[in-house]
Amino acid sequence: MALGFTNTFAGNPLDRRSEARGDGAAWTADPAALALVLWQGQPLIEEVEGAPRIAYLAAARAFELCAGVEHSLFMGLWNATPVFAVEHEGASDPSAGGPLEGLGAFYGLRDLAAVLPGVETAICGAAKALVEWRARHRFCGTCGTATTAADLGWKRICTACGAQHFPRTDPVTIMLPVRGDMCLLGRQKSWPRGRFSALAGFIEPGESVEEACARELKEEAGLTAITVRYHSSQPWPFPTNLMMGLIAEVNDDQVAPSTDELEAVIWVSRAELRQMLAGEHPDYGAPSPIAIARTLMEAWAAEG
Amino acid sequence: MALGFTNTFAGNPLDRRSEARGDGAAWTADPAALALVLWQGQPLIEEVEGAPRIAYLAAARAFELCAGVEHSLFMGLWNATPVFAVEHEGASDPSAGGPLEGLGAFYGLRDLAAVLPGVETAICGAAKALVEWRARHRFCGTCGTATTAADLGWKRICTACGAQHFPRTDPVTIMLPVRGDMCLLGRQKSWPRGRFSALAGFIEPGESVEEACARELKEEAGLTAITVRYHSSQPWPFPTNLMMGLIAEVNDDQVAPSTDELEAVIWVSRAELRQMLAGEHPDYGAPSPIAIARTLMEAWAAEG
Repeated sequence: MALGFTNTFAGNPLDRRSEARGDGAAWTADPAALALVLWQGQPLIEEVEGAPRIAYLAAARAFELCAGVEHSLFMGLWNATPVFAVEHEGASDPSAGGPLEGLGAFYGLRDLAAVLPGVETAICGAAKALVEWRARHRFCGTCGTATTAADLGWKRICTACGAQHFPRTDPVTIMLPVRGDMCLLGRQKSWPRGRFSALAGFIEPGESVEEACARELKEEAGLTAITVRYHSSQPWPFPTNLMMGLIAEVNDDQVAPSTDELEAVIWVSRAELRQMLAGEHPDYGAPSPIAIARTLMEAWAAEG
Repeated sequence: MALGFTNTFAGNPLDRRSEARGDGAAWTADPAALALVLWQGQPLIEEVEGAPRIAYLAAARAFELCAGVEHSLFMGLWNATPVFAVEHEGASDPSAGGPLEGLGAFYGLRDLAAVLPGVETAICGAAKALVEWRARHRFCGTCGTATTAADLGWKRICTACGAQHFPRTDPVTIMLPVRGDMCLLGRQKSWPRGRFSALAGFIEPGESVEEACARELKEEAGLTAITVRYHSSQPWPFPTNLMMGLIAEVNDDQVAPSTDELEAVIWVSRAELRQMLAGEHPDYGAPSPIAIARTLMEAWAAEG
């Protein structure tokens, strides 16, 4: 694709009209407006000809069923149609005996991402990230007072001190360390048996992307980065991350994995990596196709 | 530099020991520990042989003068010496008749960045970003209750609901749009007369870096991106940004600048851009050397 490799959760086709949200009241009132509904970070899904699709509701109905436009977020225009995301709050599933009964069912986005059309995955991901951000900014972090929504949900303003709060996106480095014809993979204890993947960590204040990558390699695996090459990026809505995908050349093949973060690390050759990606390795498995970690592994496997 | 181009505010030499902050009480108690002090986002500076330097205080003294270790943030180890950042709160300058009288003076980091040694600029930038984050997370955004510091200031925990809050870093795309031998520059009304620079905007939830770049080009200048190439990144502590520096090839040279964000845009040739960077253009000036915008302009000027 022209704008670089498109990872899962990228490719949202909506026109965000970010510059016009402050004047967007007409979109909220548009009788043609649609809304996707989220409950506990999961989108409402219906089945269309045997395949899952976003269960769009008329926006006005969604605002009514989900207790108010205050809970809505403007996702953008789909051609001329305004699309909103609306969160249903509460502990019990509103599609099971609640106000959304019969309109669809809620599914986790990690599973959906493998089966929804890519553009719907991207829309759901953006909606989930915004909803999670909103839930964590109901009150002002500066003074503790309640905040109210502005700009169709894209800004929250403190009703006491006036502080403005904007959507949060947390940049993360995710990197494949390589040396010659070998690359290093790691695994966390909670992963499915045999799965190995790239290493990752949050970028901290005061770091460049490359510095954060080098620090994580040192901390997690005891490796020293020589060069860091940017591959592509991926919005990752668990909850609000932006993955910066990197291939890092390291200067040795000795590793001292951090017992805090990794259960094990392995060096594998390009040939073994290709086996893993093909699902043909006797011991090791690769991450899901929705993960940029797999994109990086595929990219480097294809280089040799 | 091996790890990619080092922009101003990158190059912090401290060992952050991010994995060990939870067990870092010994660093706080270390009698050799040092602290830099910030007031209103400005570091305390002293003059050493006619040149500005960070005015490090013994950490214990800084904790005392600045009302408590609660206000301190662990910046990392300088060889074996723990270094903290401590914020002095309050409206009046504590170096002018206050508790820090005679220990130095506070200066804004934009000005300092041009004259401090690069490693001190990077340390001050990281400290400023953390201090600004802390000030906006004294209360829990989820429930409005006060938060307390943990992990030597790198985590804030809600005393009621237990929500954990981590330092925030806002990723931004900053891009030079190019077509053939021409590039586009824009200016904001508030800038010094004649200055033109790269375009920029925050990356939103659900966008890749490349998508955010394409959206900003369309919104701000009416341009369509064909390819987006990553150059380098820069931590930018005003207040807590991470600049992703890009060179974007666009498919036309017609522009419709947004009157909201830009006062004017110009297309300049590589030859004119070199004149600007050399300070020899009769009408146009380039951004400061501390800005990644200038890095991008220099990189592209050198390509032709």
